[in-house]
Amino acid sequence: MDTIQSDSYPIFFDDSLSELITFIKQGKYSRTFVLTDENTSAQCLPVLEPLLAELDNYDLIEINAGEESKNIDFCVGVWKMLIDFGADRKALMVNLGGGVVTDLGGFVASTYKRGIDFVQVPTTLLSQVDASVGGKTGVDMDGIKNIIGTFTQPKAVFMSAAFLKTLPERQILSGLAEMLKHGLICDADYWKELKNSDLSLPSVELIYRSVEIKNAVVIEDPQEKSIRKALNFGHTIGHAVETNSILNDERPLTHGEAIAIGMICEAWLSHKKAGLPKEHLHEISTVLNGLYPKYPVPDTCHNVLYELMQKDKKNTEKQINCTLLTKIGCFSIDNICTEDELCASLRYYAAL
Amino acid sequence: MDTIQSDSYPIFFDDSLSELITFIKQGKYSRTFVLTDENTSAQCLPVLEPLLAELDNYDLIEINAGEESKNIDFCVGVWKMLIDFGADRKALMVNLGGGVVTDLGGFVASTYKRGIDFVQVPTTLLSQVDASVGGKTGVDMDGIKNIIGTFTQPKAVFMSAAFLKTLPERQILSGLAEMLKHGLICDADYWKELKNSDLSLPSVELIYRSVEIKNAVVIEDPQEKSIRKALNFGHTIGHAVETNSILNDERPLTHGEAIAIGMICEAWLSHKKAGLPKEHLHEISTVLNGLYPKYPVPDTCHNVLYELMQKDKKNTEKQINCTLLTKIGCFSIDNICTEDELCASLRYYAAL
Repeated sequence: MDTIQSDSYPIFFDDSLSELITFIKQGKYSRTFVLTDENTSAQCLPVLEPLLAELDNYDLIEINAGEESKNIDFCVGVWKMLIDFGADRKALMVNLGGGVVTDLGGFVASTYKRGIDFVQVPTTLLSQVDASVGGKTGVDMDGIKNIIGTFTQPKAVFMSAAFLKTLPERQILSGLAEMLKHGLICDADYWKELKNSDLSLPSVELIYRSVEIKNAVVIEDPQEKSIRKALNFGHTIGHAVETNSILNDERPLTHGEAIAIGMICEAWLSHKKAGLPKEHLHEISTVLNGLYPKYPVPDTCHNVLYELMQKDKKNTEKQINCTLLTKIGCFSIDNICTEDELCASLRYYAAL
Repeated sequence: MDTIQSDSYPIFFDDSLSELITFIKQGKYSRTFVLTDENTSAQCLPVLEPLLAELDNYDLIEINAGEESKNIDFCVGVWKMLIDFGADRKALMVNLGGGVVTDLGGFVASTYKRGIDFVQVPTTLLSQVDASVGGKTGVDMDGIKNIIGTFTQPKAVFMSAAFLKTLPERQILSGLAEMLKHGLICDADYWKELKNSDLSLPSVELIYRSVEIKNAVVIEDPQEKSIRKALNFGHTIGHAVETNSILNDERPLTHGEAIAIGMICEAWLSHKKAGLPKEHLHEISTVLNGLYPKYPVPDTCHNVLYELMQKDKKNTEKQINCTLLTKIGCFSIDNICTEDELCASLRYYAAL
């Protein structure tokens, strides 16, 4: 499998992760810090440790697993550990984990001593196809996702399919939603290929294609001024549904489950407002509804969801901006949607 | 007085601050937030308020005055206020204050929703000639200055001499130390002019010249990889003395008072290690010692000061890097100094 070259950094596809060790050695870093969470310490670190043993020294920093840890308090904990370890500006941070670890670790590294180098080693399908490419770092605050963060590129990304084998099916499906999104916004053939594949464990080739699509978009618009907004398809409604679920459900939706709901709703909006043909809407709804469990979105929660959408950092002056589809494989950004339209789309999903 | 053009933003010299209002109006910001501390709310905001009244809306956010407020807790407070106010990505932050307000406000703005626009309105001599130019933002942690922060440029800087008239003499002297440093590292004529001036309130022309020097240096090396380190002259030892004073003294040294001590010590190191002629060392010591009150630096505190220098973000792998002078007006970066040399320089200062 080839290496993908992003704007300023390479994305390695290498199950052995030997490229990672070569990278660290060549970088002549003063010290290497590996950030993990409880899960990746147990599941993924053992894969890495024999390789890390080749280094002169490295230190481990562990945070709690889960979106609840993605906050400024955990950043303070990691910053203080870096200070205690005497980390200098030539230190390297290796973020080994899912989106929480890569987003939080990237933010901590990008702000420690005004920025030290970091690399991403995403260990979930979701973080491989989404969080680890594109240079967005961040943590949540007051229930708002990624509200505090920076745009900072990692020095490299290392993808290993070895990590995916231990993932529960629900986590695979979570990442799959982003892959399906990449097809829907940019590549009808890829969408078609995906929906006809065995999706219990997507092949490296399919993952590679997804990273290629995301990478091409973010290279063109790193700061999300224009076409990067394409990646927000499904996320205006999906983020609100996800946040609401995290705040209220005992077993919250995964990111992908929420985004799948968002994509169905926003496909409906695309049909109403952006010319998405009826048969395309039908196809999207059928595929997504078949893959993801049905989730109740009663009329009584529309108010709360709408408020969450207004707080979303994508939106300005309380107007809700959606990325919609004009057909499968083609997007249209900056479509202002009214509260009535958004609620109607939620009703469309509920009635499926 | 001309406007100085920095890398990506203008630095306006305009006592009336009318340019600030023009800037805000032309920027079509969704909302304007003015960050102050207790002191600038009382002393400086009244100057701005008649102008701000021309805007459709603006909101005030106030933090406590003083270096003790320059921490992550106050950032969280300001981030949460921005969230509560519903600030979107097109909001503007106006940082009205000294270095604490401009550094903390810059950091908060550069990380809120991954970065909103901010402008600096420095109200002390120190922040006018130092903190507000160069795109360094940050806050302190565990007693280490500016350890968490970003390199982010403001959209503009607005200098008004009107604010300086209310400053106590000690604050003027604090800023003056940085001006003298600019002369010492880059411009012997400017140093000469400064030392022969009435320094109780430096003229706008002298301030302008200082900003010109700092701006020229940071444009060439925004990320402090090379020549920007020139600005660290006096700061390796000065920062340690300052931090130690903040932690221990009832009435801590100002930044400038500490940097003046640092410059005397590092001038001695420059004489020993970098060829600074003896008469230049004598001249520097005499001028600085005459302007700033003598401060006790007994041998018993050398240990603590050395530990603080090791934690300074300028230093790597526990080696202490100093910027030294080869003569007045010329600097030399990356001079490694041993513990013995650093302690000897402190003894030189103590014996003056």
